[in-house]
Amino acid sequence: MRPYEKNPASIYAASFATVRKEARLDRFQDDMRPLITRLIHACGMIEIADRLVWSFNAYTAGREALCAGKPILCDCEMVGAGIIRRYLPAENAVIVTLNDETVPARANEIGNTRSAAAVELWTPHLDGAVVAIGNAPTALFHLLELIEAGGPKPAIILGFPVGFIGAAESKAELARDPRGCEFVALRGRRGGSAMASAAVNALAAGLPEDVQ
Amino acid sequence: MRPYEKNPASIYAASFATVRKEARLDRFQDDMRPLITRLIHACGMIEIADRLVWSFNAYTAGREALCAGKPILCDCEMVGAGIIRRYLPAENAVIVTLNDETVPARANEIGNTRSAAAVELWTPHLDGAVVAIGNAPTALFHLLELIEAGGPKPAIILGFPVGFIGAAESKAELARDPRGCEFVALRGRRGGSAMASAAVNALAAGLPEDVQ
Repeated sequence: MRPYEKNPASIYAASFATVRKEARLDRFQDDMRPLITRLIHACGMIEIADRLVWSFNAYTAGREALCAGKPILCDCEMVGAGIIRRYLPAENAVIVTLNDETVPARANEIGNTRSAAAVELWTPHLDGAVVAIGNAPTALFHLLELIEAGGPKPAIILGFPVGFIGAAESKAELARDPRGCEFVALRGRRGGSAMASAAVNALAAGLPEDVQ
Repeated sequence: MRPYEKNPASIYAASFATVRKEARLDRFQDDMRPLITRLIHACGMIEIADRLVWSFNAYTAGREALCAGKPILCDCEMVGAGIIRRYLPAENAVIVTLNDETVPARANEIGNTRSAAAVELWTPHLDGAVVAIGNAPTALFHLLELIEAGGPKPAIILGFPVGFIGAAESKAELARDPRGCEFVALRGRRGGSAMASAAVNALAAGLPEDVQ
């Protein structure tokens, strides 16, 4: 077998250098560059940079929420599993309600998916929190509905639902009217839990592996 | 807000119908179609179908390994979190060794990453197992090295490491010489834990949500 790079610091440095070079990050708002870098690094796709949308204060709001100890609400276990706990500035709680035993019955009651029903269980934790959606369009749609109905507002919504039915539409709705929340989202069908986790990790710690 | 699809069965049916239509799955080997469908569904990218490579008996070998109760070895927690436990045919163990306390020291000893060192802890479980790599190129490279050195062989390697340094190369090496293992891999930089989990879920259960 040919030799391959085995040194973690060299792997990170070369990865981030590739992202910086190919994505031309200097096009983007200063404080968003580490987050964009982590997103690209998580999926191996430079071109997503051109499909990202965000509100001007997204990074600051997300960072401040984490530093204030606010919880991180995730739509699925994979997003939670990708959050690097040692990076969190205040031992923030990572909350996933999808597998709560009350969720299936609640989904039936509201005529929506389990992912949407699980969002209703976020209510006591939601005010000023960080929301990371990496799977279900219906979770994002229902969160926007609940906020519109007067429910508590998270500080920031990281919108990365993925797939063919509702993903593009739910993120377009978030970008069109974020209901007073800050947001970062990837337009279109692409997304996923790795991106949602990467966005949280960027708000938590920037790029601590980047030791150029 | 505009109406959106809330019925899980309708969402799955419409998603899979989109995949079937856009990916022209009839090009592909019969028994691989559910797996290819789940992979596309996991990432929202039809075009990955053209970058997938696999060995002819991959599906059968993977399916039989799971039915025989063999464990599933994952390179990171996110891959483990994405495996749908109720789909597994034999309550198969899902093993992630990355956070074992001996891993950092072992990584230092072998001069490789923690992900590579964690693969060495797979040895007692590896013979005939299902390997799902969704993050680290070095995990795939080191697994191939260990097999080449006479170590035990998994039944199948699901190769989906992602990123800019070593991901494309490690998967090319797997496809060039799978060392007597069956395999499925996505060529190039793209990959990720959602795809690795989706491949396991497909071996476990096909497409049970597809009730056309």
